[in-house]
Amino acid sequence: MSDFGDDGAVDGRLRPIGVIRSDLKDRKGAPRQGREGAPDAWLDVHPWAMDGLLGVRPGDELFVITWFHTARRDVLQVHPRGVASNPIAGVFATRSPDRPNPLGLHPVIVRAIEGKRLRIGPIEAIDGTPVVDIKPVLICVPGQTGEP
Amino acid sequence: MSDFGDDGAVDGRLRPIGVIRSDLKDRKGAPRQGREGAPDAWLDVHPWAMDGLLGVRPGDELFVITWFHTARRDVLQVHPRGVASNPIAGVFATRSPDRPNPLGLHPVIVRAIEGKRLRIGPIEAIDGTPVVDIKPVLICVPGQTGEP
Repeated sequence: MSDFGDDGAVDGRLRPIGVIRSDLKDRKGAPRQGREGAPDAWLDVHPWAMDGLLGVRPGDELFVITWFHTARRDVLQVHPRGVASNPIAGVFATRSPDRPNPLGLHPVIVRAIEGKRLRIGPIEAIDGTPVVDIKPVLICVPGQTGEP
Repeated sequence: MSDFGDDGAVDGRLRPIGVIRSDLKDRKGAPRQGREGAPDAWLDVHPWAMDGLLGVRPGDELFVITWFHTARRDVLQVHPRGVASNPIAGVFATRSPDRPNPLGLHPVIVRAIEGKRLRIGPIEAIDGTPVVDIKPVLICVPGQTGEP
């Protein structure tokens, strides 16, 4: 079984489960990381995916995985944080949004849930960014295996 | 600019940057999480993506993002950990591999680097699992903004 075609690309299968609604309107104005002064935002969950939220509650720590829809995908090395004096590094050693598969990984707190919208933050993703997955942050306690 | 078609699916664009080579050969034998006794494994990076590794070193903590190629994608609710007595939950409140976009998120340590292979672990992904991204784990220290 393979989801990948002969050229190695996924066969058109990644499907957004929601979208970010934020006051951040473009990359230029966005912080590099959520904890660098990013605002809270809305995660509008698409109606077909709502059932997947059962058990998500205000106060939960989640990873939101986004698709950086304005990123460059032909970039393998960058000056970290876009600063030319930083020594060049491979994108896999950085959190640059420019990378072969521009997935964003955002640890957030659920501030509130209103119908099909989650208020989450802090998050540096810009308005209109597609969301492709949500996962609980697992607290790693050695020997503890009781997480969801 | 949009990478998504009218039906909301990504237009065939997710492209594996490598593949997991593991002694774990199927889901049945695999732990639920890396820290539940999973082995180390090899991450074979595809030649075209090698330049993205510049700066990745043994001892680094990374998130490896995989595509669970044997997962079910039509599942929105599960009994956590596959235990029928666990109350049903939305997949976004769990780490179930069965979910609309079966992305796996694996915190690992880089044990060694040999040419185009990274020895990483612990990781519960099975042999042949495609890898779609690698990111550094950022240590979140309030007020510190010096990460890559």
